[in-house]
Amino acid sequence: MTGMRSERDLIGRLRRRFPPGGGVRVGIGDDAAVLRGERRDWVVTTDWLIEGVHFQRATHPARAVGWKALARSLSDLAAMGAQPRYALVALAVPPTTPARWVDEFFGGVAALARRHGVRVVGGDLSSAPQVTVDLQAIGEVRSGRALLRRGARPGDVIYASGTLGLSHLGLWALRRGRAREFRRAVRFHLYPRPQVRLAAALARHGATAMIDVSDGLSTDLSHICEASGVGARLEADRIPLVRLTPAEEKRLGVTARELALNGGEDYELLFTLPKRKAQRLPRRLAGARLTRIGEITRRRGLRVVDARGRERPLPVRGWDHFRRR
Amino acid sequence: MTGMRSERDLIGRLRRRFPPGGGVRVGIGDDAAVLRGERRDWVVTTDWLIEGVHFQRATHPARAVGWKALARSLSDLAAMGAQPRYALVALAVPPTTPARWVDEFFGGVAALARRHGVRVVGGDLSSAPQVTVDLQAIGEVRSGRALLRRGARPGDVIYASGTLGLSHLGLWALRRGRAREFRRAVRFHLYPRPQVRLAAALARHGATAMIDVSDGLSTDLSHICEASGVGARLEADRIPLVRLTPAEEKRLGVTARELALNGGEDYELLFTLPKRKAQRLPRRLAGARLTRIGEITRRRGLRVVDARGRERPLPVRGWDHFRRR
Repeated sequence: MTGMRSERDLIGRLRRRFPPGGGVRVGIGDDAAVLRGERRDWVVTTDWLIEGVHFQRATHPARAVGWKALARSLSDLAAMGAQPRYALVALAVPPTTPARWVDEFFGGVAALARRHGVRVVGGDLSSAPQVTVDLQAIGEVRSGRALLRRGARPGDVIYASGTLGLSHLGLWALRRGRAREFRRAVRFHLYPRPQVRLAAALARHGATAMIDVSDGLSTDLSHICEASGVGARLEADRIPLVRLTPAEEKRLGVTARELALNGGEDYELLFTLPKRKAQRLPRRLAGARLTRIGEITRRRGLRVVDARGRERPLPVRGWDHFRRR
Repeated sequence: MTGMRSERDLIGRLRRRFPPGGGVRVGIGDDAAVLRGERRDWVVTTDWLIEGVHFQRATHPARAVGWKALARSLSDLAAMGAQPRYALVALAVPPTTPARWVDEFFGGVAALARRHGVRVVGGDLSSAPQVTVDLQAIGEVRSGRALLRRGARPGDVIYASGTLGLSHLGLWALRRGRAREFRRAVRFHLYPRPQVRLAAALARHGATAMIDVSDGLSTDLSHICEASGVGARLEADRIPLVRLTPAEEKRLGVTARELALNGGEDYELLFTLPKRKAQRLPRRLAGARLTRIGEITRRRGLRVVDARGRERPLPVRGWDHFRRR
């Protein structure tokens, strides 16, 4: 269970153990599962948020923990092009947790739920040595229209929404006690905005594959490529980075490019479109900036091209790996 | 968050914070939530299973942990009269957990899933200091026909299926290293059988309220009574107890009656029926023995009548309280 390699192996074994079938359109291995409904399909997802793994109580206020727990799941639904409808919240806390912490946690859940018209319909409460949240969200999508990871084709254009690496910059600043200098990044890290409206608009614009950027650009792009049986070429200069001066990069001990490629939790959308449809895609949609960052290739693997046209392989370094540096 | 009192308060606050509405037929506070579908409603539930809280790795093999995690959720669906269809498994384990433990865990999930035709469609994997499972199950029920806790009426007859206290006897035996003497109880504790078929049959027989016995008879009956705004009178002699000799009770330090009233995890069904319909209820249904154990009363509170007709209040002592003795 340590590292990405073994997690990937395990997911492979689980896909074989629990194959789709019956009313299951999409089973284990995408952002969410898709269940056949009558006129509409149901899309369901579940996401952990664990103290000491995904957040620290010293840096993450209760309201942010609640907000973020729901944001993670809503972002998974968005990545399928689904409209979120319901949520269930499983919360386990140490017995000494103040009632106020728990209330603020649910206040954070409620605030984001209201924003997206999501109803919290149930959950489970228990105790655990550390705050542990598992949040399930249920959404709807037109029958057969969920946007999967596996739809990317050679020649498709790759896009990202927003700025990549901003959330990780916020985390970095929080950990180093420099939240005041990077206020916007910190806010973005604590209260991420799942791109629900944007996702729906992209489905209408003919996106072929989509994923939310939760583990960093390199990892999430590799998921699309593996699922679609293709490769990708990114243009280094086009990746929408956070703006950091060389002095800031030095003080922080990380570059804007590293934050974008290997950071995580941006909850922006990474998606592909056929060239023809890409020409009709506006540069802003549903309030988000869209940036063309590369192209899907027949040749497997991820490659990155710099400003001088030099191409090199792009190592896939996800959130987990990066975090341990 | 400690104790039942504060958990009950919290659930009350959550019900006010997250009221039902929209497509929600039943929100927070029953065994599961009910969502309006087209011809059928969807029933959803989520349940924790946490090492050190709900089980110990020393006494509970990986396969039993997986089985039990699913059993808890399927039992909640059964208690609503729903047919289970799908499950999502969120698993967090210490990084040192052997891959074999994880495989056996999923083997346990798969074995029970197969038995009920349930598809495992997704989940999430993470790390945590102790094995932590949160399992969501999704089922279907005829539109508007879910069996709730709130349907019991004065004069209704109260029934229980199976034997109450058997699971807790198994746990007791496991903890005291006496599993061999109480093999059947231990098996029942490790591999509980959610009463899915029975629940569907009871819905057809006109049950008015239903709950699964997960926290002990006294607690679960109090949930039906509170939700329905009624009270109950149990006949002490009729409660289907495990058979223990006085010598065994002494050696174990617990009586069969205490196990039934305050033990937990039997996953039997506790339900009510109008008198007229009770007369037509067979004594066995879907392989389970059904025992008439009391009556719903207009007067609030739980009371118990002994063989000599003496009536006294029944203290509500749930699993949590009992466990700390």
